[in-house]
Amino acid sequence: MEEQKKKISLIAFSGDFDKLTAVFTLATGAAASGYEVNIFFTFWGLDAIKTEKGRAFLGKNWLTKLFGFMMGGLSNTPTTRFNFFGIGPRIFRYLMKKNNVATLEELVDAANALGINLYACEMAMHVLGLEKKDFIHEVKDVLGVNTFLELSEGGRTLFI
Amino acid sequence: MEEQKKKISLIAFSGDFDKLTAVFTLATGAAASGYEVNIFFTFWGLDAIKTEKGRAFLGKNWLTKLFGFMMGGLSNTPTTRFNFFGIGPRIFRYLMKKNNVATLEELVDAANALGINLYACEMAMHVLGLEKKDFIHEVKDVLGVNTFLELSEGGRTLFI
Amino acid sequence: MEEQKKKISLIAFSGDFDKLTAVFTLATGAAASGYEVNIFFTFWGLDAIKTEKGRAFLGKNWLTKLFGFMMGGLSNTPTTRFNFFGIGPRIFRYLMKKNNVATLEELVDAANALGINLYACEMAMHVLGLEKKDFIHEVKDVLGVNTFLELSEGGRTLFI
Repeated sequence: MEEQKKKISLIAFSGDFDKLTAVFTLATGAAASGYEVNIFFTFWGLDAIKTEKGRAFLGKNWLTKLFGFMMGGLSNTPTTRFNFFGIGPRIFRYLMKKNNVATLEELVDAANALGINLYACEMAMHVLGLEKKDFIHEVKDVLGVNTFLELSEGGRTLFI
Repeated sequence: MEEQKKKISLIAFSGDFDKLTAVFTLATGAAASGYEVNIFFTFWGLDAIKTEKGRAFLGKNWLTKLFGFMMGGLSNTPTTRFNFFGIGPRIFRYLMKKNNVATLEELVDAANALGINLYACEMAMHVLGLEKKDFIHEVKDVLGVNTFLELSEGGRTLFI
Repeated sequence: MEEQKKKISLIAFSGDFDKLTAVFTLATGAAASGYEVNIFFTFWGLDAIKTEKGRAFLGKNWLTKLFGFMMGGLSNTPTTRFNFFGIGPRIFRYLMKKNNVATLEELVDAANALGINLYACEMAMHVLGLEKKDFIHEVKDVLGVNTFLELSEGGRTLFI
């Protein structure tokens, strides 16, 4: 087997602040170690790559608009536990700042700087009524499951 | 290393509608691309393979019966977020139908048609008081962890 | 490719009773089958390796102490569904005992006996204000993401 770049691919399904932090921590850590890194955002995970302004106006009809509004964007992601109506993530952010750990927004920036490939899931976009223009421009492509499986083949794949 | 069929194995732990949708979407997408696909249903994931009629009467005593009743079957699975007492999954189903995306029940049917191997976790069945006869006949076998690890070796394994 | 010990690595992110049970069931099953097994505890998963007495007093300031108190230790972990203010895990324990399935504490013991490597995530410890002395002595080391990726390379990695 010839030497090739080690690869890790993450399926970012969750829209929770702590799980998205885990996604970007793993991704940036791996990229910094020389891995090829792919993140495939699907379902609630699509929150992480929506444009900030998009919060209330994305979606093609009132129902997907409503879902979009409730999901919010990256700055509104809840934690899986102890969310307390949005206070949980703020405590996290505070603790992360205080302890010199990169915050989620910094991790997204770092992901781009490190050449991590960001992909959006085609099916979830259809279900939630989102389009490519609703996402930050750093998103490389919109993919179906099959294409994702193909490009992640030969490396580890984690579902988060 | 000789060429062999690519393999992907999914541990379906969650009983949530959205995560089960992810399980079957990944599984059917992979099978359609020529992968060998194994799904190992455990804990709440066992919901997905219970017989419809089984909802209220499965389990060997009142406690497991109660658990079984609360867990419900495939048509009662909640979503991880915005469940709203069962309305969340209905919205999803509506959106999926409207956007021509396969629904969960259709994905289960497709899984069978595509020759995906469905397994039930022996330990979780013991804990929850379930027996092989409580599951749909498409379930190929009841397995322990060790057998699952063996048959999934040499491919990717995702925990969902 | 020369024969080498098969390897499986688990990222234990969740602090939920049922998911931690899944972590240790997979880990001990794999170790019993001859796998090298690594568990990397991060975020809420750190609960599983905290010293029992540590429940209320861990953490360097009132905020991390509060978080630590709410998270509790291994005997306070909730289930992801049907927690009912702590009754859920007790029902589980009861069912596990009754059906001769190893309980979570027994699985932790078994993990040690089987030579499973337990690691704590450095970043999560910083965020939550925990130190190595707050964990059970069986924890082998405190690691960053990069070291974990390195030692888990060449095997399967699951995020739970």
